[in-house]
Amino acid sequence: MTTERPRLTVRPKPDEYAWTFGGAAPVARIAPGTVLDLTTEDCFAGRVTSTRTLVSEVCEFPFLNPQTGPFWVEGAEPGDTLAVHFVSVEPARDWAASTTVPLFGALTSTHTTATLQDPLPERVWIWELDRAARLCRFSAHDSDLVLDLPMDPMHGTVGVAPANLEVRSALVPDAHGGNLDTPEMRAGVTCFLGVNVEGALFSLGDGHARQGEGETCGVAVECAMETVVIVDLLKGVSTPWPRIESDTHLVSTGSARPLEDAFRIAQLDLVQWLVRDYGFSAMDAYQFLSQAVESPLANVCDTNYTSVAKVRKAYLPRGHDPYLGLHTHLREAAASLRA
Amino acid sequence: MTTERPRLTVRPKPDEYAWTFGGAAPVARIAPGTVLDLTTEDCFAGRVTSTRTLVSEVCEFPFLNPQTGPFWVEGAEPGDTLAVHFVSVEPARDWAASTTVPLFGALTSTHTTATLQDPLPERVWIWELDRAARLCRFSAHDSDLVLDLPMDPMHGTVGVAPANLEVRSALVPDAHGGNLDTPEMRAGVTCFLGVNVEGALFSLGDGHARQGEGETCGVAVECAMETVVIVDLLKGVSTPWPRIESDTHLVSTGSARPLEDAFRIAQLDLVQWLVRDYGFSAMDAYQFLSQAVESPLANVCDTNYTSVAKVRKAYLPRGHDPYLGLHTHLREAAASLRA
Amino acid sequence: MTTERPRLTVRPKPDEYAWTFGGAAPVARIAPGTVLDLTTEDCFAGRVTSTRTLVSEVCEFPFLNPQTGPFWVEGAEPGDTLAVHFVSVEPARDWAASTTVPLFGALTSTHTTATLQDPLPERVWIWELDRAARLCRFSAHDSDLVLDLPMDPMHGTVGVAPANLEVRSALVPDAHGGNLDTPEMRAGVTCFLGVNVEGALFSLGDGHARQGEGETCGVAVECAMETVVIVDLLKGVSTPWPRIESDTHLVSTGSARPLEDAFRIAQLDLVQWLVRDYGFSAMDAYQFLSQAVESPLANVCDTNYTSVAKVRKAYLPRGHDPYLGLHTHLREAAASLRA
Amino acid sequence: MTTERPRLTVRPKPDEYAWTFGGAAPVARIAPGTVLDLTTEDCFAGRVTSTRTLVSEVCEFPFLNPQTGPFWVEGAEPGDTLAVHFVSVEPARDWAASTTVPLFGALTSTHTTATLQDPLPERVWIWELDRAARLCRFSAHDSDLVLDLPMDPMHGTVGVAPANLEVRSALVPDAHGGNLDTPEMRAGVTCFLGVNVEGALFSLGDGHARQGEGETCGVAVECAMETVVIVDLLKGVSTPWPRIESDTHLVSTGSARPLEDAFRIAQLDLVQWLVRDYGFSAMDAYQFLSQAVESPLANVCDTNYTSVAKVRKAYLPRGHDPYLGLHTHLREAAASLRA
Repeated sequence: MTTERPRLTVRPKPDEYAWTFGGAAPVARIAPGTVLDLTTEDCFAGRVTSTRTLVSEVCEFPFLNPQTGPFWVEGAEPGDTLAVHFVSVEPARDWAASTTVPLFGALTSTHTTATLQDPLPERVWIWELDRAARLCRFSAHDSDLVLDLPMDPMHGTVGVAPANLEVRSALVPDAHGGNLDTPEMRAGVTCFLGVNVEGALFSLGDGHARQGEGETCGVAVECAMETVVIVDLLKGVSTPWPRIESDTHLVSTGSARPLEDAFRIAQLDLVQWLVRDYGFSAMDAYQFLSQAVESPLANVCDTNYTSVAKVRKAYLPRGHDPYLGLHTHLREAAASLRA
Repeated sequence: MTTERPRLTVRPKPDEYAWTFGGAAPVARIAPGTVLDLTTEDCFAGRVTSTRTLVSEVCEFPFLNPQTGPFWVEGAEPGDTLAVHFVSVEPARDWAASTTVPLFGALTSTHTTATLQDPLPERVWIWELDRAARLCRFSAHDSDLVLDLPMDPMHGTVGVAPANLEVRSALVPDAHGGNLDTPEMRAGVTCFLGVNVEGALFSLGDGHARQGEGETCGVAVECAMETVVIVDLLKGVSTPWPRIESDTHLVSTGSARPLEDAFRIAQLDLVQWLVRDYGFSAMDAYQFLSQAVESPLANVCDTNYTSVAKVRKAYLPRGHDPYLGLHTHLREAAASLRA
Repeated sequence: MTTERPRLTVRPKPDEYAWTFGGAAPVARIAPGTVLDLTTEDCFAGRVTSTRTLVSEVCEFPFLNPQTGPFWVEGAEPGDTLAVHFVSVEPARDWAASTTVPLFGALTSTHTTATLQDPLPERVWIWELDRAARLCRFSAHDSDLVLDLPMDPMHGTVGVAPANLEVRSALVPDAHGGNLDTPEMRAGVTCFLGVNVEGALFSLGDGHARQGEGETCGVAVECAMETVVIVDLLKGVSTPWPRIESDTHLVSTGSARPLEDAFRIAQLDLVQWLVRDYGFSAMDAYQFLSQAVESPLANVCDTNYTSVAKVRKAYLPRGHDPYLGLHTHLREAAASLRA
Repeated sequence: MTTERPRLTVRPKPDEYAWTFGGAAPVARIAPGTVLDLTTEDCFAGRVTSTRTLVSEVCEFPFLNPQTGPFWVEGAEPGDTLAVHFVSVEPARDWAASTTVPLFGALTSTHTTATLQDPLPERVWIWELDRAARLCRFSAHDSDLVLDLPMDPMHGTVGVAPANLEVRSALVPDAHGGNLDTPEMRAGVTCFLGVNVEGALFSLGDGHARQGEGETCGVAVECAMETVVIVDLLKGVSTPWPRIESDTHLVSTGSARPLEDAFRIAQLDLVQWLVRDYGFSAMDAYQFLSQAVESPLANVCDTNYTSVAKVRKAYLPRGHDPYLGLHTHLREAAASLRA
C-alpha cells in the first residue's frame, strides 16, 4: 500500500524567488506530509556562468541565495517542529561555479574582520559535473591540474521564518536554519526545524554539488538543483536549533561567532537531545558525547559560523527513536516514492 | 633485508617525567631513525583511579600531562623537521579515567571565559577497556546505561621545545605541537614537527583510549600507554605548524583562540602544503581545498583550541610524495619491525 | 534670527511602540531639519517597577526595547546620511531599574556562550534618580551600602532600518545602529547613520540614566526619557557604520563578534574618516590614531558587541569640519531652541 | 623624617637584558622597599633609529622588548603580592620610533588571524619628543601633516615570572603581567602582581612616550626610559591578575583571546576586588560596576589581548584602603624621594 501524499511541483521563474527568511509572502500553502518537487537556482541567481562573470560585476547584493518558497505549512505554530525529509537532491546542470568574493571567506579579511589590506583577487572556477560518474571536475587557473572529487549534492540553505519579529537575509545561518552550509544536508536525511511563526514559512536554496567542511573560501561548488522533499509537522515538540537525522547519525548544529560559541551551542544541543530522547542525565551525556562525538565544521565564512555535533546512532541506547520515529517513517515514504 | 635501527626503551619512574615543552633536561640522546619503545602515564599522572579520586583533590597543578622524554635528536637544528612515526599505541591498563574538572572544558565557564556562576559538579567516570574486543565501556553515573565505543588509541600530547626562548606547560598546544588533542594522532601516522632548538627535545604523553572531536568536557578516555615510535629527521625542511600524514590523508593543524583563528591557521597551512609539494598556485589550492577539505575539530577546551584540516591523498595530483616520501618509508620500516 | 524649524511632539501610548528596525510602519513623515520632542519608555516597556518584578516574569520576549518611531525622513535614500542631534536627554521619572536577566550579560553563560551551568540569580535593583543633584543612587541588596554615581543620561538604542531587506530586533546593534549601548550617545552630540532604505525609518529608545562601559551585566540604569532631537539629512554622503561627533571628539563604532572584530571595524572606520575628511593617507592615519585613539567599550553583552574608537578633535589638523560642519550647525540650532 | 630606603641603580649594557619572564638569571637581589633607578631600552632594542631601519631588517626575533631585570625580591613566595610603585617614567631620548611590522597589529591579518593576503607595507615613523613642552610630534609620510600629541610616558611591559613552570616571551601579556601595553602604567600608580615563584623575578621594559588605547597598529611611540620604581612586598596577599591603583582609580586587567574573554577576566577581577576589600556581595558588585566601570582597551595586537576595568575610588564606600593602604604609603614615599 502506498500512502497517497499531496504533491506540489514548484519551478520558480527568475522573479519568483525569496531573498529572506521571514518577510516574504508564501508561494503556496501545503498540508503536512506534502511532497514538494522543487527546482532551486544557485547562490548567484544563475548569473555566474563563465570565468569572466565576476560576482562583483554580475551579481547585485542582496539578491544572492535565491530561495524556493516560502511554503506556509498548515497548522504549524510556534513551539512545533517542522520535519523536512530530503528524498533527492540532484544537480540540474552539468556544470557548477565557484568563486572568490572580495572580502568574503575565511582566508581573507572581511567587512567585520576589517583590515587595511587589499582584498584577494576575484576569480571564478567552473566545475564540470559528470552526473553519471558522480564526479565534480576541478580545472586549475594557474596550471594544467585537472582533478576529480566525488559529487555529494546538498543544500546550503534550509530554514523557516525567524523568531522575534525578525527578517533575515538568506545569507545568514542562525537558530531558524538558513545558510547553515553543512554537507550533512544531503538526500536521505531529515532536517528538524523549530517553528517560530504561524505557517513556519519554510524555504530552501543554495545547492552545492559538493562542499568542503568549513566552506573555506566562502563559496562551494554552486549549482541549480532538482530537489524532492517531504515536509511534515510535529505538533507540540520543540527544536531549539536545527537538527538533522540520518540513517546513521544524530546531528546538531550551532551558528554563532566566535566559532567556539557555535561549537558550544551544537554540543550542548546534542547533550540535551540525548537527555530528552535517550534517557541520559546531563552530566552523563556530557561525558559520553565528549568521547563519542564527531565535530566537523560546516561554514567558517558566513555572518554566523556553523559547527556540527554528530553521534552515531549505533552507539546509543537501543529502543529509542527520536521525534517519534519520524525519520524512519519518512525514509520509508521516500523509498515508496522512488519505487 | 631488515634495516638495523637503533632502539631505545624508556619506562619512566614517577619522578622521571617532564611537565613542559622546553626547559626539561633530555632523558636521552638519540640518532635519527631510532625506534623508541616507551610507556606514558595518563594525564592525571595515574592518580585518578576511582570515581572517588577527584582531580581537584588528588592532582597537583601543574603536575598534569606527564611527558615521556624529552629526547635530544642528534643533528636537529632550527629549520629542520622532526618526523615521528607511530608504530603502535596500546593501552597499558584495562581501564581508563575521564572526569570533569572545575572551570575546565567547553560547556562551562573557565578561568578565561570567566563568569560569576558556580562550576559544574566534579565527577569521575571509570571506563573499562576491553583490549581484545577493542572497546571502551561507559557506565553512567545517574542511570543504568552501559554503552560501548570503539577503542581508537592516540596521544593527546606530542611536541618539541618551542621557539622564542619559551617553556610551555604540557597542557598547551601551539606551533611546537604539545597538547593538540586530536584523534588523528594514532598508530600508523607520521607527525611532522618543525624544530625550534638544537636537539629538538621531543616528548609525548597524554594517551587516550579514544576521544571525541573537540574533547568537549576537556578530558578524554585517559590511560597509560605502551607506544612505539620511530623518530627521524629531515634536514633543511621546515614545517610551520604540526602536520600529520596517514596512509590516506594529509593533515594540518592550527592552535589558537578564538577557534576561527585555529581554523584559519590549519586551512592556510594545508593550502601552503599543496603549493609547496603538489604544484598548486595558492589561489587554486584555496579553491580546491574549499571543496575537498575535511575539518574536524581536535580540542575546544585547552589554552589554545586546535582545528584540523585534512585532505584525502587520493584526490591530489599523482606522482607527488610529500616530505621526500618519508611517511611511506617509515610505514614500511614499521611493518618490518612488527614482522 | 532664529531658524523656524518644523517641530513634532510624539508621546507614544503603550501599543504605539516599534520593536524592530525595519518592518514597522512609520509613525510620521518629517522634513529634514525637524525638531522631534519625544518620550521613550525604558527597555522593559515600563514593567519592572520594584525589586519583585522579575524580567522573566513580567516581560514578554521580544517586546523589549520599545522604540519611539520610526520616522520617515522625506528625501532620505540609500547612500545618504541621517544626522541626529541630541538637544536634550532627560529622565522622565525619579527612579530607574536595573536587573540581571537569566543567561544574558557578560559574566554569565548565555544562549550562545552555552554551558551546562545554572544561570545566575535573577535580581532587580531600583535606582533613585536625584535629577536636581544629577545623581543616581544605588542601594545594595545584600548589605547596607548606598552609593551615588553621577547621572549621565543617554540612549542605548538609536538607528535606522537595516540594509539587505532585513528586519532586526531592537535588541541588536549593527551597521544600522540599533542597540549600540554606548554612553557616547548623550545630549550635545550628533549621531550620523547611513541610510539603507527610502525614508531612513529612524527610531530611538532604551534610555539610560547612566551606564558603565561594556554594560557588563547586560542592563544599564534603565529609565523612560524625555528627549529632544533635531533630525537632518546629508544627501549623497555615505556613512558605513554609526558615527558620533561631539564638541570635543570624533567617535566611530563597530558592532560584531568576537569583540576584536568590533574593535577592528571601529578603528578602521576612524582611519577612513580621517582619510576622507582630514587629508591623511591610510597608513599615516593608522599610525597617528594608534597613538591618539581612545577605545572605550560600549557593550559586551548584546547580540553583537560594540566597540568605540574616539579621537580628540583638538589633535587633528585645523580647518576641517566633517560632514560639512553639520554638527557645529546643529549645536547652534540646539542652543537657539533652548534660548 | 625621610625613610631610609635601599636604593639600586641599574643601567644595563646591550647584552645584559632579559627577553623572557622566567628563565632569566636575576641581575640583583633586592629587599622589599628598595628604590630601583633604572634605564630601559625601547622594544626594538634601540635598533630602529630612522625611517630606513625596518624592523624586519634590523631586529632579530625574539630579541624584542628587552627587559631590565629580573630582580629577585627577598622573601617573595607564591601567594604573595609584589607592589611596584612608579615614581617617575621619563623618556631618555628626544625622539621615539613607531612602525608597522609585517603580519602584526589589529588592522592586518597576522600569523594566527591567517589569510592569503599580502602584508601591509612596512613603515617607520620617527616621533620628536619635546620633553619640556611634554609633546610627541608626528610627521606624516605621505603628506605635510605635522601634529602634536601630549606626552604620557608609560611602560608597556611589567611583570614577574609566570606560574606552571613556564617561561614566556617578553612580548606576551598574561596573568603574570608582561606585555600588557596599557597606558594606565604611568608614573604615580602602583602595580600589584601575584608572585608565582620564589623571588618573584620582576622586570620591566617597553617604554612608550604615549600610546593609544588598543595599540592598534601594534607599536606605540617607543622610547628608552629613565624610570624609578619602589618595589615592595605584601606577604600572604594574593593577586590573581595584574592590578593597578592610582590616586583616583582601581584598575583590573585581563589578558586573553578572544577579546571578550580579556574583558570578562578584568571585569570579574574588579568585582572580586570590591568583594574582598570593599564589603560588596558579588551580585551587588556586579550591578554597581556595570553602571560605574570604565573599560578602555589596552592592546588588541599582542599574543593575548588586554582589557582594562577601572572604577573611580571616589564612587566607592569610604573607609576602605585596598592592599593595606600600600599605594597611599608608597605615594608618600615617592614624594619624599622627589623632595
